[in-house]
Amino acid sequence: MRVFAEIGATPAGGVNRQALSDGDRAARRLLCDLALARGFGVFQDRMANLFVRREGRNPSRPPVLIGSHLDSQPTGGQFDGALGTLSAFEVLESIEDLAIETDGPIEVVAWTNEEGSRFAPGVMGSMAFAGAADPAAWQSLTGADGASFADELAATLAALPEATMRPFGTPVAAYLELHIEQGPSLEKENIPIGVVTGVQGTRWLLVTLSGQAGHAGTTSLAYRRDPMVAAAAALHQLQEAIMPADPQARLTVGRMMTYPGSINAIPDSVVFSIDIRHPDPDRLDSIEAEVRRVCEEQAASQQCSCAVVRTFDMPSATFSPVVVETIEMAARSLSLASKRMVSGAFHDALFLARVAPSAMIFVPCRDGLSHNEAEYVAPEHILSGARVMLETTIALARRPA
Amino acid sequence: MRVFAEIGATPAGGVNRQALSDGDRAARRLLCDLALARGFGVFQDRMANLFVRREGRNPSRPPVLIGSHLDSQPTGGQFDGALGTLSAFEVLESIEDLAIETDGPIEVVAWTNEEGSRFAPGVMGSMAFAGAADPAAWQSLTGADGASFADELAATLAALPEATMRPFGTPVAAYLELHIEQGPSLEKENIPIGVVTGVQGTRWLLVTLSGQAGHAGTTSLAYRRDPMVAAAAALHQLQEAIMPADPQARLTVGRMMTYPGSINAIPDSVVFSIDIRHPDPDRLDSIEAEVRRVCEEQAASQQCSCAVVRTFDMPSATFSPVVVETIEMAARSLSLASKRMVSGAFHDALFLARVAPSAMIFVPCRDGLSHNEAEYVAPEHILSGARVMLETTIALARRPA
Repeated sequence: MRVFAEIGATPAGGVNRQALSDGDRAARRLLCDLALARGFGVFQDRMANLFVRREGRNPSRPPVLIGSHLDSQPTGGQFDGALGTLSAFEVLESIEDLAIETDGPIEVVAWTNEEGSRFAPGVMGSMAFAGAADPAAWQSLTGADGASFADELAATLAALPEATMRPFGTPVAAYLELHIEQGPSLEKENIPIGVVTGVQGTRWLLVTLSGQAGHAGTTSLAYRRDPMVAAAAALHQLQEAIMPADPQARLTVGRMMTYPGSINAIPDSVVFSIDIRHPDPDRLDSIEAEVRRVCEEQAASQQCSCAVVRTFDMPSATFSPVVVETIEMAARSLSLASKRMVSGAFHDALFLARVAPSAMIFVPCRDGLSHNEAEYVAPEHILSGARVMLETTIALARRPA
Repeated sequence: MRVFAEIGATPAGGVNRQALSDGDRAARRLLCDLALARGFGVFQDRMANLFVRREGRNPSRPPVLIGSHLDSQPTGGQFDGALGTLSAFEVLESIEDLAIETDGPIEVVAWTNEEGSRFAPGVMGSMAFAGAADPAAWQSLTGADGASFADELAATLAALPEATMRPFGTPVAAYLELHIEQGPSLEKENIPIGVVTGVQGTRWLLVTLSGQAGHAGTTSLAYRRDPMVAAAAALHQLQEAIMPADPQARLTVGRMMTYPGSINAIPDSVVFSIDIRHPDPDRLDSIEAEVRRVCEEQAASQQCSCAVVRTFDMPSATFSPVVVETIEMAARSLSLASKRMVSGAFHDALFLARVAPSAMIFVPCRDGLSHNEAEYVAPEHILSGARVMLETTIALARRPA
């Protein structure tokens, strides 16, 4: 863990190891070297997803796949992604050390470009692997730093000549991903293991309320068409209605702009984002409908117009009950408290769940902090997570085909 | 009017004739030439306030001062300021044409830099004239275009060598300013003459609500300290409470920023401006107190902190009942409907009211538009305003000393 965190280390104790950068290539090189030293097989596909394989008794069985990603945010932490990938590798080493035989093979995976901060979108590698996107569409992308996606991908593939190329979408028996929670609930409830039953669906709505600019002093109430009045009323109504009534719902307004933005003028228009999330697609539909209705009603009450545009739509995922229960049994056998939870963030498991029985293990992170150089996971939580992963992986690999 | 509007004319039919620019100097040159051609005296003081004097029977009496400003916003209209200054000059010409004798002199004034868009603050000329600010403090100012205030002021003074220099703060018998309303009420109520009884006091408050940034998906309601929730609740509460309960109150939120401003993150902080106005200083105090109380309460309810800073404070002005009644009598004698109103915008009259009995005449402008190239005043409203000004000026100049 520490050695990997030195690759792209930032002065503030974080990591800048963005996808397909020199740092990303160095981390992949290191993982490949560690794998080859243990006699494991190393493979990559044309999205540079990297696989480390320990053979089973029956090489024709699809592997149990365990892992996460190695790329980071530009001012990311040491644990987001890397913890899941390196824990998976330690699980593989432990199984090797213990000389445990499994019927099917076990593979560790490091998915390419989960973060999406250098080249958007994120979760590229797993999305392409699961056949949910055609990577040809990304070839002409330019990164936030001006780099060519196609060039950086080719350089990354070429940097591991030892890795055998394989096609996309090879069959997978089960997928397991350990990740930091990136939220505060496990830490606050003092529970070491989160058993993730699915990923919330996410939609981004961009709301534009338009009225009429006017002088702050000369325009009396009767002559105002103030979109800020409509915005405050709509947001207050939605904030009171959605989350308090439904513990699984999320509604966040992270960005608001006013135009022209003069202190002494009624704005002509107010634009804000609404991020809504829910594990149930029907409930997500009904929340979106409520957002649209409330914004339109409050706009109309101020003689303003309202436009709501959906700018992003990530469907929810429901993980495999079998994998979820296997994780729970593993935690119980280790006397570790666990709780079922839904992930509010995207993960590669979101797309793997479309092609294989999948689930995730969450471990607590300090203060819920992530995408932050101060991100931290206590050593005992890392150990607990890795032990649950080991037990779960062995159980999954021993399942009848 | 049309000749002046050509000085600094913009393609969209507006005017860019900012203070102390070449265009401003050309407009002053034209006014000076027109004045000299009629045999009027021309004076300026060291803020380049420009005075055109028609002598009375008793030159030792303080003059009745009538006028406004000639400078404009960068994309201003033809009427803001210029209408009042040129109407005043036409009043002076009419009095001369009619050979009306007045006991005291009458002077037309064009105040320097009312707008404040090139060199801040605005209303510089009248503020210095009234002794409300020391112009020495402005000598080192640099304009929005990089120009030196001191250099541009010196060039403007030097451009009118015919004008006799006079000191600041010469006594004034009464001050009268005609201006476009810059709001919609006269037009909507179909009243040609607004009799302005005072100027609202204005305060600008900058409110910062600070909570804790968090992931939009992973952070459940119980763990949120969301300043946007506090902001929407506070603004909705204030918007419902202040203006609907008091027709003279104004509360405007023209600017809001969210930090860090990510769509998928609870903001760390939300910053917004509140512009509050009221003609009664006590009521302005109580509105400010209510803003502070509501913001603090709503911030506390979200476990956020709240800071409210007063960034601007312009006291209200109450105009002279004698001048107000003189305007009303003039309108009545001309069979023009009028209504008393309070100005929501600043004007040079705000500072003149501190040193002389003062009031203003408002005329309707189309759609309430001002600070806008589409600003427009119908010819019949210009004529009505000028006629009321003429009658009022004569009546004021004939008042016993």
